[in-house]
Parts: sequence; structure tokens; C-alpha cells
Amino acid sequence: MNYETGPEHRADLQNRLAPGVRLSMGEWRPKAGFDILVSGAPTARELESNPRLRAVIVPWVGVPLATLDLMQEFPHIALHNLPYNIGPTAEMGVALLLAAAKRIVPSDRRFRQGYWSEDPSSKIPGSVMLDGGLALILGYGRIGRRIGAACRGLGMRVAGVRRNPGTTAEEHAMGDLLELLPQAAALIICLPHTHETDHLIGRRELEMLPANAVLVNVARGEIIEEDALYQTLQARRIYAAGIDVWYRYPSAADRRQGLPHPPSSFPFHDLDNVVMSPHRAGWSDEKEPARIAELAAMLNAAARGEPMPHRVDPLRGY
Amino acid sequence: MNYETGPEHRADLQNRLAPGVRLSMGEWRPKAGFDILVSGAPTARELESNPRLRAVIVPWVGVPLATLDLMQEFPHIALHNLPYNIGPTAEMGVALLLAAAKRIVPSDRRFRQGYWSEDPSSKIPGSVMLDGGLALILGYGRIGRRIGAACRGLGMRVAGVRRNPGTTAEEHAMGDLLELLPQAAALIICLPHTHETDHLIGRRELEMLPANAVLVNVARGEIIEEDALYQTLQARRIYAAGIDVWYRYPSAADRRQGLPHPPSSFPFHDLDNVVMSPHRAGWSDEKEPARIAELAAMLNAAARGEPMPHRVDPLRGY
Repeated sequence: MNYETGPEHRADLQNRLAPGVRLSMGEWRPKAGFDILVSGAPTARELESNPRLRAVIVPWVGVPLATLDLMQEFPHIALHNLPYNIGPTAEMGVALLLAAAKRIVPSDRRFRQGYWSEDPSSKIPGSVMLDGGLALILGYGRIGRRIGAACRGLGMRVAGVRRNPGTTAEEHAMGDLLELLPQAAALIICLPHTHETDHLIGRRELEMLPANAVLVNVARGEIIEEDALYQTLQARRIYAAGIDVWYRYPSAADRRQGLPHPPSSFPFHDLDNVVMSPHRAGWSDEKEPARIAELAAMLNAAARGEPMPHRVDPLRGY
Repeated sequence: MNYETGPEHRADLQNRLAPGVRLSMGEWRPKAGFDILVSGAPTARELESNPRLRAVIVPWVGVPLATLDLMQEFPHIALHNLPYNIGPTAEMGVALLLAAAKRIVPSDRRFRQGYWSEDPSSKIPGSVMLDGGLALILGYGRIGRRIGAACRGLGMRVAGVRRNPGTTAEEHAMGDLLELLPQAAALIICLPHTHETDHLIGRRELEMLPANAVLVNVARGEIIEEDALYQTLQARRIYAAGIDVWYRYPSAADRRQGLPHPPSSFPFHDLDNVVMSPHRAGWSDEKEPARIAELAAMLNAAARGEPMPHRVDPLRGY
């Protein structure tokens, strides 16, 4: 298992495993190989060198594109995910939407210094209203629909764009995207990252958004073109953005060392119209016990020879 | 009229007024007195010295307690408000709730310096989940019900406490407050400030909240006891708060000068578990034209001898 969680959660996992299930963590690997690998980023070597391997479990909902590609070369190894970050991701998506729309961060910073009004040199309004506006939700699966319910509660209309739209009036096909963008008060990205969705939102799409639109990304950075996103915000061509997913990630070793690592080659940190969040939407202390319980149930099912839930199609990405 | 709005909105108001209606603004007052005063803070002298005065319009929803008290001494002068900040106030209430629950401000600040994880010295979880929790909404009028709808969209249960509860299961009387506090994931204050609600939430009430509760105040500072609020947050007895309304306001002259003016005698600005907002929940650039149109319609109605809408009972405060 290559999944970093707290020591109390590792102990919980151990306690929940059936007697026949053995767990290895960290650098150590059993010589005889293993049957199931829990990892967000399995390597080709790990997959090739373990003839017993029959399943990879990505311990969260979004499977990295590199992993989707790699798994297609190993069709005999099943891919699964652990969709226990749906609730936290949806809540963080709405939190980033509102924080961006209300300029919560710059307003808090200035007020802590005693100033009751915006910097007079700021030419932009102090907030935008979402009530009555259209929430355009790109990716209308379980996360997107939960975000949609909250947006409706805020008085917004909702359009959910997905590959296979259902029959409800709010669901749209990908082909409707360009028509919907100019109507959006908010564009919220919660699609899986696949070859189809890579750079789905570029300069053309961002330029079609209204001037007071708010953009949120809780999916994967690469769905929005990095330079187009930076330049759109820097030139204030939209009102603001709340961004949880980025372009340059620290390695696991760097992360353990805790050294600073900018999330982009562009200076997003100099912009006051972006709320910056360090890819933490899916994390919730409260949900971790449920994730661990589900992981144990999956491993125990596999040990009994039963099928595991949460199968992912590496071609579709979900 | 003592109401500061942008020059374009003043021009809009002038254009909308019927020919017989004359508007005076700023220091200048017509010698013959005036019939209607638009002001959030009328003085006893203004009310006494204008025998023609028959109505005061407070140009937003919440009438200051001092104004409610003063108006009771002048029962022949009608009190009205302009409830055009209901939508913006509700949205800001939800924005402050989510920003506090997800530590949006400290997370953004740290990530701008390149750090992907919380300060390791921080002992508190990086966020709390609201999904499934109880939103306890104190004051369940038009603002409270809109906040309730958004909370339900986020997956929360809702209990609305009001003086005159209706028959729906979610509405509760004031007497249920102490029973509901220990169940609240969020306590959201949107009551009018009256003698009854002054210091309604003190040390005892705050101590009854769960350790991971989030507190929001978009009503008036004095509804929560200042020292109890500061000490509760400083000692981390609840998770966090989002506060838009305060205890020490700058005078209009200070505000025009733009000098810093701390909003409390306690150093809230040193706490990282409070989102600080400079009493701006009710303001929205988008809603100002509607407020101005309604004010013009009220003044024109009065000029025609018709009754004006939005009457406020100075005893109830709404």
C-alpha cells in the first residue's frame, strides 16, 4: 500500500482486515509479490514485476491520467477507486465558489489591518451575486450533482454537462458547452482528467465566459490550460477563480520535507482574484474512517474470492 | 437623505422621482423642514425639529437598536426599511460559513508561500464537514430561510429559531434554543437586534456548542457578547467563526478619511479561526439599482398620499 494516512487510520485498517490478508506499507515489499496494490501512482515496474497482481485500488475518486494510460497496457489487472471524497470535494467546491465570488480572502486581510472598505485603487466590485445566475457544472457525476444541489439552494439555475447526459432538462451533452459558457455566472469543473478532457478549457473557452463569471476547479489542473488560466485572471477577464488543483506538484519526498514548492510556473500567488487551495478538496478527517472501512471491506472481499466494488474503466476514467 | 451611495445611483434616484418630490442630501436641509427622512441613524433633534416629518426610511433591512428606541418616542412618525440586502446577506452568510469550515483564509495564505500542508504546529483539523450536520439558524425570516435553503443544498439539516414559529417541523420557538445548541454543526445568527436579542448569545450559549461547531453572525455584533466570542475563539472551544458584524464602528467622518479602526477592543485579527468581514454582507453592486428604484417608488407613493410599503414596528424591530 502506497497511501499516506494517519497512524490511527493505519491501525484501524489492520484491525479490520480478515486474518488471511497481509498488508505491507512503505518501502518494504514482500518477496513473493502481492495480489492487490493500493496506490494513486503505480509504476510500470510494479505492475510487470508482480505476476500475482490482479487489482490496483486508487485510494480516492480521481484516477491520474498516467495511471489510466498505464492500466490499459495491463488489461488483466482490474482498476478500482475509493470514492470517499465525493462529499468533501463537493463542499470545498462550493466553498471556493463563494470565497471567490465574495473576495473573502482579500477582504479579511485588509480588515485585519483595520480597513473597513476595499483598497480605493481596486477598480473591481467587492463581490458578485450568484442568486439567479447559471451554475455551469462540467462533469455531472456524483460530485457535480451535489455541487448543483447546493447551487440551487443558493438560488442559482444549474446546467450539468456530461458525456452521457440523462433525460432531465438540466443535463447537457459536451457539444452544448460553447453555447452555455457565455451564460455562466459560475463554471465549476469536476470532470475526470482523461485524454478527452485534457486542456478542455483553453483561451477560447475562458474568453467566452462573462466578465463577472467565477471559475472553480476541483478536478485536475490540466483540464484548464495553465497559461490561459493565469492570463485570464491576471487581465481580470473574469471576476475570480477558486482553484484546488494545480500544475506542478511536489514529490512525495519533497512533501515530507515540507519545503515550499510553487504549484505553477506562473505567479498565481501575486493575484488577488484567485483563492488558492493546495489540492485538499477531497480530504476530510471525518471521512477517513469511512474510506479505511471501505478499503478493508474491499480487501477482505478479494481475500474471500468475491468481486470488489468501485471498478473503474481505464478508457472512460471513471 | 443621509444615505451614502454612488453618484450614478443618486442620479438614478433623482431621475425616478415624481416632479413634486424634492430631495436634499448631505449637510443642507430645507428651512421649511421635510416630510420624509432617509437615514439609518436619525437624531432626536432631527425628529423633534421637523413638525412636518411623518416617516423615517432606514435604507437597509436591519434597523439599529438606538433608532428603534428613538422611534418609540415619536409614535406619529412611521418607520420603514428597505429590505434589498436579503439576497446578498444570505449569500455572504453561507460564504462565511464555508470559509470558516474549510479554513479558506489560512490555507490560501500558506499555499501562496508554496506550502502544501497545514503548519505542522497546528493541532486542529484542516476542515470540518457540514454534510449531515444541523444548521441552527437564529432568526428565521427571509434571510434565515434563504440561508436554510442553501444549507439543505449542502446536505445539512435545518432548524430555524424565531419568535413566532410557524407549523413546519424545522421552525422552533426561542425556548428551544438551549436544547438545540449542543446539536448544532453551525449556528448562524440573522436576527434583528432588539432589547430581547441583545447579548442573546453569551458564554453559556457558546459553551453549549459542540467542539467542531462553526458560528456565523451576519446580523448585529451585540447579539453575541464580545468578550465571550473572543475567548471562545481564542481558546478554540469551537472550530471557527465567520463574523460580518462588530462592536466598534468608525464614524462616518473616520470612514471617509479611510484611517484604520479596529472593530473590537479584543485582538480578533490575531486569530486564525475567524473569518473577518467588514459589515459588508448586505452590500451588493448588483442590488443597488433595485434598492434605489424601491426608494423612489416609496417616496413617489408618499407624494401621492398613498401608504408606503416595508413598515417596521419599532417594538419588534422588523
